[in-house]
Amino acid sequence: MATHKLLLLPGDGIGTEVMAQVKRVLAFLEQQGLASFAVEEDLVGGAAYDQCGLPISEEAMKRAFAADAILLGAVGGPKWANVPYEARPEAGLLRLRKDLQLFANLRPALCYPALADASSLKRELVEGLDILIVRELTGGVYFGEPKTITDLADGQKRAIDTQVYESYEIERIARVAFELARTRRNKVVSAEKHNVMKSGVLWKQVVSEVHGADYADVSLEHQLADSCAMQLVRAPKQFDVLVTDNLFGDILSDVAAMLTGSLGMLPSASLGAVEELTGKRRALYEPVHGAAPDIAGKGLANPIAMIGSLAMALRYSFGEGALADRIEKAIAGVLAKGFRTNDIKSEGATVVGTGGMGDAILAEL
Amino acid sequence: MATHKLLLLPGDGIGTEVMAQVKRVLAFLEQQGLASFAVEEDLVGGAAYDQCGLPISEEAMKRAFAADAILLGAVGGPKWANVPYEARPEAGLLRLRKDLQLFANLRPALCYPALADASSLKRELVEGLDILIVRELTGGVYFGEPKTITDLADGQKRAIDTQVYESYEIERIARVAFELARTRRNKVVSAEKHNVMKSGVLWKQVVSEVHGADYADVSLEHQLADSCAMQLVRAPKQFDVLVTDNLFGDILSDVAAMLTGSLGMLPSASLGAVEELTGKRRALYEPVHGAAPDIAGKGLANPIAMIGSLAMALRYSFGEGALADRIEKAIAGVLAKGFRTNDIKSEGATVVGTGGMGDAILAEL
Ligand SMILES: CC(C)[C@H](C(=O)O)[C@@H](O)C(=O)O
Ligand SMILES: CC(C)[C@H](C(=O)O)[C@@H](O)C(=O)O
Repeated sequence: MATHKLLLLPGDGIGTEVMAQVKRVLAFLEQQGLASFAVEEDLVGGAAYDQCGLPISEEAMKRAFAADAILLGAVGGPKWANVPYEARPEAGLLRLRKDLQLFANLRPALCYPALADASSLKRELVEGLDILIVRELTGGVYFGEPKTITDLADGQKRAIDTQVYESYEIERIARVAFELARTRRNKVVSAEKHNVMKSGVLWKQVVSEVHGADYADVSLEHQLADSCAMQLVRAPKQFDVLVTDNLFGDILSDVAAMLTGSLGMLPSASLGAVEELTGKRRALYEPVHGAAPDIAGKGLANPIAMIGSLAMALRYSFGEGALADRIEKAIAGVLAKGFRTNDIKSEGATVVGTGGMGDAILAEL
Repeated sequence: MATHKLLLLPGDGIGTEVMAQVKRVLAFLEQQGLASFAVEEDLVGGAAYDQCGLPISEEAMKRAFAADAILLGAVGGPKWANVPYEARPEAGLLRLRKDLQLFANLRPALCYPALADASSLKRELVEGLDILIVRELTGGVYFGEPKTITDLADGQKRAIDTQVYESYEIERIARVAFELARTRRNKVVSAEKHNVMKSGVLWKQVVSEVHGADYADVSLEHQLADSCAMQLVRAPKQFDVLVTDNLFGDILSDVAAMLTGSLGMLPSASLGAVEELTGKRRALYEPVHGAAPDIAGKGLANPIAMIGSLAMALRYSFGEGALADRIEKAIAGVLAKGFRTNDIKSEGATVVGTGGMGDAILAEL
């Protein structure tokens, strides 16, 4: 049996709490002889800053490069509101994304039938919803230079951020979107602001070219990002795969996730390029939700997005599709049995905490 | 009776159709001796490009500077997909905003009780919703330089957009938001991405300083833009005034507008600074909706947002609050009587076209 090298980075807030449940699932899989893991663990975010003054240590970065896959909990919290900008918790996550070149962020927005009533939207608009957001993750305004605050005369300041995209960055993410669309409902919407941004002009042009050259069988629609945000609210089921840049992806994926009413349920994958020699790709898996400082430490967090992220790692990084299926079936099973954490609770449900949901999933496995 | 200098810029698509209804209202008000207007009309957007090769002529810009208020319909459409970037229809609107320094864009997201069922959201989440988005409109990535596409080696290209904010730009929009909050429910949410963008760091800092110095009586909350987008979907009634930058405002205001289910209903105002000498401020009023090429020319467009924009002009630029009230009451009246255009139709309603809605409003006036 192959041993999978897994790095756990629980991070801050509820990150540590939901990661604790993942550890229980890993232990269970090993005990049962179903899989073998070489697990390492390290700090990221505020937790790392508190220990070494950096949001991720060089040691942890080395471990990240050596791992087959990384599972990350969440970073951030008010405790670190005043640390220097370069050392803020988010910088640890951003460094991982950038240095490992995890350019393709896949964020499924899936409405679990059992949870359709938890959505703000009318049931008929979201029931059966299954959108895959493909967000560019290593470019755009997140990393472009200059990125500065300068002092001017009279105490005035000027802040600058720079959105930079090169054709190759747009091309590779477009290819990921078209490939994934072929495994789904064969439809891609690409969102940008070409009416205002030059990066939007280039984005639209490159996506069209890639489409025309290699993916003419996939349906492609261009939407302006503002109008796309509207369409997500108006008629979300029109979407299959939605490809967009780093900043628009940040916002649109949160909107899409919230539509499903199951924010604590959604995992994500951030993938690098497939290496020619090994056929492997670097990968980091994390919940779509954040560190949720308001409920941290209370044992209330929903561990399903984190455990679902482990399932994605099993499927996409470790070639263990059957095990991934088994975990996802266990998750569906506990939902069908009425177990709910606070974020998704409804009338008549059995409300459980983080550990209780872990218990239920382990029992179901 | 003072004569109000009004410039009409119908623009493209349904812009001309909804503006035609505004002209009927203007004629009615004059006939009844209720107000006196010196109305000029000019082209903007694709219509202007077709005539003079520019999305707004110098002549029209002069008229814009001379007017007490501008009413604009909408710009854009597929017909102009391939005109040079600098001459695209949107550039006409952007030039008006920038040259007239209309930095404060007010976008109410109001859920008309009669239309609550038209929303995607569950009725209880949007009934009575009344959010005012205050969007910075002359800065940020819309206008920052460099804004370029460069050819690199091997046919590769690099696109650059630049987000620039200076403290004074943030301060003046924050003041508008706090002042408006005092006339409403005294609550401001400020949205940025300080965890990723330096302009977000400066934004948050300046808004906090203005708050601490002059508006400590107003409640202020900072939200990350992605999380704010989620909150808009999750629990929109938590918002009173939402202040944000040009790009986030573009997206968040569209989300907020769509929540109300009445996109064809919402007017907006774009205001300049109050001039010391005259006490006047430049102003442009336009519907939140766009040129809607899919329904243009069919007489289906809802003219209420455009007529509502005239009401805003009467109130904020012409000191004619009573007339504004009268128009808004007429709009509420026709809705109560069951008149609906296509975009807001529901069972049992009397569905009318653009002209039919105009008739109904004139009758009600
Ligand atoms: C934590 C933050 C830096 C991050 C982002 O903005 O990308 C988060 O919002 C996300 O979407 O993963
Ligand atoms: C037409 C376009 C340039 C404009 C914008 O992006 O500001 C529009 O979307 C708006 O919100 O007024």
